[in-house]
Amino acid sequence: MIKIGIVGGTGYTGVELLRILATHPQAQLTAITSRKEDGVPVAQMYPSLRGRVDIAFSSPDKANLNACDVVFFATPHGVAMAQAPELLANGVKVIDLAADFRMQDVAQFEKWYGMEHTCTQHLPEAVYGLPELNREQIKSARLIGNPGCYPTTMQLGFAPLLKAGLIDAGNLIADCKSGVSGAGRKAEIGILFSESSDSFKAYGVSGHRHTPETIEQLQRLTTDKVGLLFTPHLVPMIRGMHSTLYAQLKDSALAMSNEELQAVFENAYKDEAFVDVMPFGSHPETRSTRASNMLRLALHRPGNGKTLVILVVQDNLVKGASGQAVQCMNLMFGLDEATGLNHVPINP
Amino acid sequence: MIKIGIVGGTGYTGVELLRILATHPQAQLTAITSRKEDGVPVAQMYPSLRGRVDIAFSSPDKANLNACDVVFFATPHGVAMAQAPELLANGVKVIDLAADFRMQDVAQFEKWYGMEHTCTQHLPEAVYGLPELNREQIKSARLIGNPGCYPTTMQLGFAPLLKAGLIDAGNLIADCKSGVSGAGRKAEIGILFSESSDSFKAYGVSGHRHTPETIEQLQRLTTDKVGLLFTPHLVPMIRGMHSTLYAQLKDSALAMSNEELQAVFENAYKDEAFVDVMPFGSHPETRSTRASNMLRLALHRPGNGKTLVILVVQDNLVKGASGQAVQCMNLMFGLDEATGLNHVPINP
Amino acid sequence: MIKIGIVGGTGYTGVELLRILATHPQAQLTAITSRKEDGVPVAQMYPSLRGRVDIAFSSPDKANLNACDVVFFATPHGVAMAQAPELLANGVKVIDLAADFRMQDVAQFEKWYGMEHTCTQHLPEAVYGLPELNREQIKSARLIGNPGCYPTTMQLGFAPLLKAGLIDAGNLIADCKSGVSGAGRKAEIGILFSESSDSFKAYGVSGHRHTPETIEQLQRLTTDKVGLLFTPHLVPMIRGMHSTLYAQLKDSALAMSNEELQAVFENAYKDEAFVDVMPFGSHPETRSTRASNMLRLALHRPGNGKTLVILVVQDNLVKGASGQAVQCMNLMFGLDEATGLNHVPINP
Amino acid sequence: MIKIGIVGGTGYTGVELLRILATHPQAQLTAITSRKEDGVPVAQMYPSLRGRVDIAFSSPDKANLNACDVVFFATPHGVAMAQAPELLANGVKVIDLAADFRMQDVAQFEKWYGMEHTCTQHLPEAVYGLPELNREQIKSARLIGNPGCYPTTMQLGFAPLLKAGLIDAGNLIADCKSGVSGAGRKAEIGILFSESSDSFKAYGVSGHRHTPETIEQLQRLTTDKVGLLFTPHLVPMIRGMHSTLYAQLKDSALAMSNEELQAVFENAYKDEAFVDVMPFGSHPETRSTRASNMLRLALHRPGNGKTLVILVVQDNLVKGASGQAVQCMNLMFGLDEATGLNHVPINP
Repeated sequence: MIKIGIVGGTGYTGVELLRILATHPQAQLTAITSRKEDGVPVAQMYPSLRGRVDIAFSSPDKANLNACDVVFFATPHGVAMAQAPELLANGVKVIDLAADFRMQDVAQFEKWYGMEHTCTQHLPEAVYGLPELNREQIKSARLIGNPGCYPTTMQLGFAPLLKAGLIDAGNLIADCKSGVSGAGRKAEIGILFSESSDSFKAYGVSGHRHTPETIEQLQRLTTDKVGLLFTPHLVPMIRGMHSTLYAQLKDSALAMSNEELQAVFENAYKDEAFVDVMPFGSHPETRSTRASNMLRLALHRPGNGKTLVILVVQDNLVKGASGQAVQCMNLMFGLDEATGLNHVPINP
Repeated sequence: MIKIGIVGGTGYTGVELLRILATHPQAQLTAITSRKEDGVPVAQMYPSLRGRVDIAFSSPDKANLNACDVVFFATPHGVAMAQAPELLANGVKVIDLAADFRMQDVAQFEKWYGMEHTCTQHLPEAVYGLPELNREQIKSARLIGNPGCYPTTMQLGFAPLLKAGLIDAGNLIADCKSGVSGAGRKAEIGILFSESSDSFKAYGVSGHRHTPETIEQLQRLTTDKVGLLFTPHLVPMIRGMHSTLYAQLKDSALAMSNEELQAVFENAYKDEAFVDVMPFGSHPETRSTRASNMLRLALHRPGNGKTLVILVVQDNLVKGASGQAVQCMNLMFGLDEATGLNHVPINP
Repeated sequence: MIKIGIVGGTGYTGVELLRILATHPQAQLTAITSRKEDGVPVAQMYPSLRGRVDIAFSSPDKANLNACDVVFFATPHGVAMAQAPELLANGVKVIDLAADFRMQDVAQFEKWYGMEHTCTQHLPEAVYGLPELNREQIKSARLIGNPGCYPTTMQLGFAPLLKAGLIDAGNLIADCKSGVSGAGRKAEIGILFSESSDSFKAYGVSGHRHTPETIEQLQRLTTDKVGLLFTPHLVPMIRGMHSTLYAQLKDSALAMSNEELQAVFENAYKDEAFVDVMPFGSHPETRSTRASNMLRLALHRPGNGKTLVILVVQDNLVKGASGQAVQCMNLMFGLDEATGLNHVPINP
Repeated sequence: MIKIGIVGGTGYTGVELLRILATHPQAQLTAITSRKEDGVPVAQMYPSLRGRVDIAFSSPDKANLNACDVVFFATPHGVAMAQAPELLANGVKVIDLAADFRMQDVAQFEKWYGMEHTCTQHLPEAVYGLPELNREQIKSARLIGNPGCYPTTMQLGFAPLLKAGLIDAGNLIADCKSGVSGAGRKAEIGILFSESSDSFKAYGVSGHRHTPETIEQLQRLTTDKVGLLFTPHLVPMIRGMHSTLYAQLKDSALAMSNEELQAVFENAYKDEAFVDVMPFGSHPETRSTRASNMLRLALHRPGNGKTLVILVVQDNLVKGASGQAVQCMNLMFGLDEATGLNHVPINP
């Protein structure tokens, strides 16, 4: 059994981790910290976990995280980098669901997150936790920067085309839509039911933190200079993310048939448990992934023209966050990658 | 492995059965019938099942249901009674999720469902599939009438009080609220998104089929004459059911303390895997049971008066339908009752 | 033109007042106060009002409310009673949308609202602003306690029967359901989209402030002792309120026909612009009143028995709050009661 | 008073027309036809109109549409072209909310709508009813093709830039999102609450009817060849449309400042009652236009680069359909363009 600690388990990625780990056959939840909720049983805050998770939150000083095999940080940005050095020194592996270890470019991190990076000594060993693109590195990592939800969809959608050199890397557009849970469990007016229900809006159009993270990763796949325009939107649904990706075929690729383009995707993901390449021209719905670790995508080529449209859907809290983190954990501990992640999506 | 057939798997209780059975360790899905969708892979109609359910719908004449160990009917009322005799004669157990075998009173059935009952010869052996009240009978049954969703909440909410003789059986009020999936997967104007979203209404207030079903069952628990007023409402949510039950304490019970009343519920359900008696005065939310087989309830006594209020929540498609049916199947085949039903509720 | 001031216009009843007053032919919005938003144009906070409301919030000390003809308080409880004396002394009429002037029973007010009542000298002249029951008093009032949203539905639903002496006043049950906007525009976890969408729950079942308010008013209609059990619930919709009322016919009324009972309602409201008595046995939907000042109700008598069920719907922010306040204002200033309130409900 | 007939008023654009016309000071609703609902009072089908619309549906043969001043067609495609000739011959003006008279290119119409155009003789005089771009023609028209909802947003978003020659006309991308009411009031599985709530998807990505309509209109604004990629999506909300438009600045325009670009929009729409140019960098929400005829837009230029992003929101049933039709009617009859269209958006 893997002894697991969770720092900051009161948010949505935290409770989703708990849901997944509660039925993971190799997981032994050892400690979950929250300064504010010290002593409160987890199941009191989350009645959905009554009878399934027995431990209580404890303040960080009481929780003996150093005795864990792995610690997940489901915290605001900046917490993991403060605590990771001690944990790593004690042989504890660290998976951060926030942004502290996602970007190697410290200047970019500090610009977009407005804080000093205080753990740059460990950045070089930090592995970006996207198994479909980084599997071997994850297996041997002891420090993981778990990808952002939007970046997961953008990377898995563009990667096969970029790797194959078929599209103009400098002219990528990602028009992305997320359910409200992506904004976290924070008492803010803008994500009240009466504010965000029955409405739709874009946000962060002039610039968003997930752009530099995604560019840094996409750039690893091509020698062409990557240019990405990313537009996030808020959808009145709890979970789910839908990214509509636009890419321009290079002139050299214009002669490819749709079947050949489809094959590029099918070959790229043919061994993946959690990427489903749907038939060419499909329209995946976010609900087809609800509460599961599956990401589905489909390729379109309107008018058989120069522009490809890739539709990508996932559950932002699972493949976009906590499920992906458990997928990484499985790899890091030599388990089958899908262990504990076989949830069938909820429909309807 | 239990060889399983499903008749009519294109509706919501059907796809929910498929979701549950897909990870049930003893279930082997053998056939699923649909005249209209003959030959269509199940996963084509329900992309959420891609990679998880491999078979296709087949027309009833092609499916060899007689070779199954058990057949679930997730069909409109009237289908199961037509096919049950042949299946039973071939040693196949039958679990009907519709109403054909719920009521022993044929006249009431025919009045409320507007059809002749053509299988009265098997009614006497039909067992009402509510394990918490009928467990032993279910174990030895070969024909199950799976309870309606509303009746499950009303029975499990009122039963402890009725059995203990504490309330006026003749004056029960059940003000119940259901998510829209309870209306089924039918192309009807009234359940369109634009009609039922952002609105709330009652329906069937003057009379509803679930009243006689519930009364017949409640009457088995008391020698007093049962009187029940049941008011269903439609809530703009997909899944979930919340029943607000009102009962009047008998004069002889007025002196009981709230702790004693609470103990009546806790004792009644102390060994139940799928009934959660919450602390006195709690307010259970439907989402605390979402996509799980758990039913939660809580007791209130406003002003320490004569009226008890019992709040009951469940997922109408799981404990209110398909989960309960699998719970019955487990009992009928000697499995642990919770096999394959350990889903943790989805939150948020 | 009526010179109008609004204190505390940043919440939902405030913005709804602004929406209504923006097209009211006799309304001249003079000042709107908010300490926190001093100087911020109203239309900046509420883009829906761009081009329609030109003034900015001002801090209370800058706004010359004494120059208004009427001031609406769309504030938390306790604000109006602090400011009303000075306004009244300056000849300004006051309409409080909070609870300060709803209840004559000071002890009850202080118990339920947890604050001292500091304006008891004006309580005797305060008029409960429910025009259908209090029209004449409102016309000559200079201080209005605008009714709560739930109480409006309970009173208009029970009143005709209580006045006519047809039901057991001591045994009233009101199972009520409200859209989330009823909880106000406050940064609280429980009313986040991800918490309250796709779910349903009761709250305050053991006791709620609207019970004593409603009892005080209902008691004015009958010499029998009023007993009311009120159970509020939260519906995942923005606006709308549905109250399901249960009343027991007195033995002396059991012989009445349904037509006679229906006539009691039709006669009671035959001259009302904002109460729509629907045909016997109807199921009104909340959306049939969305964004309008209309309240609709329908009578049921299941099984032609002893229990009557009255279904009442309204928009909680209009007839349940701001529309009703404007209705009162119209009466207080000698205008046609429906002036500026002719909005047709939004459907779908 | 203008005598008005409506053909096919049972759908969402029909009931929205009725809502608007019910308070339009110059409108006299004379007839509303529906073969299926002959004799049914409109208010019985739509309780939101009780007391506001008194007439009943009548079958087409009984309704004397030739006596009207104007007839609106809120019908499926193909109905208006069958009836327009007789109406026009009788001096009745015609406003078609369907597609029959939107496109001058008959071949394109027949390809995308799958039906023969049987009224080509009147096409040349048909005016595309987008007042902001076609005002003078509408004033003198007797036959209007009312724009589609998506095309309205795309045209008003791209038009100022195209007219000014600032963007590459051949490389326009419109990623558009619509509420479910846009799909109409049809009994179809895909738009059931349980299918489309809490989910998000694209549709028609490989090709959609609104593309050729939009291109035909945009082409009128520029001599460059227009190329448009249009991707529609379905949002789980009732009303509202959000179009995210991407355009590439021409090299010759790259030196323009953001203030200059913003001025292009502000000048283009400075006299428009129903187009609100928000401050540069704003994020308009669909709800800021809910139930009103207002369209709002905002300009972004991420990274001060080559790509402009224009965000456009409207209520798809008002400015996207019935409100725009009434706006046209006002122009055709010499009324102030905003008559009867002063609804303040509903918030929350």
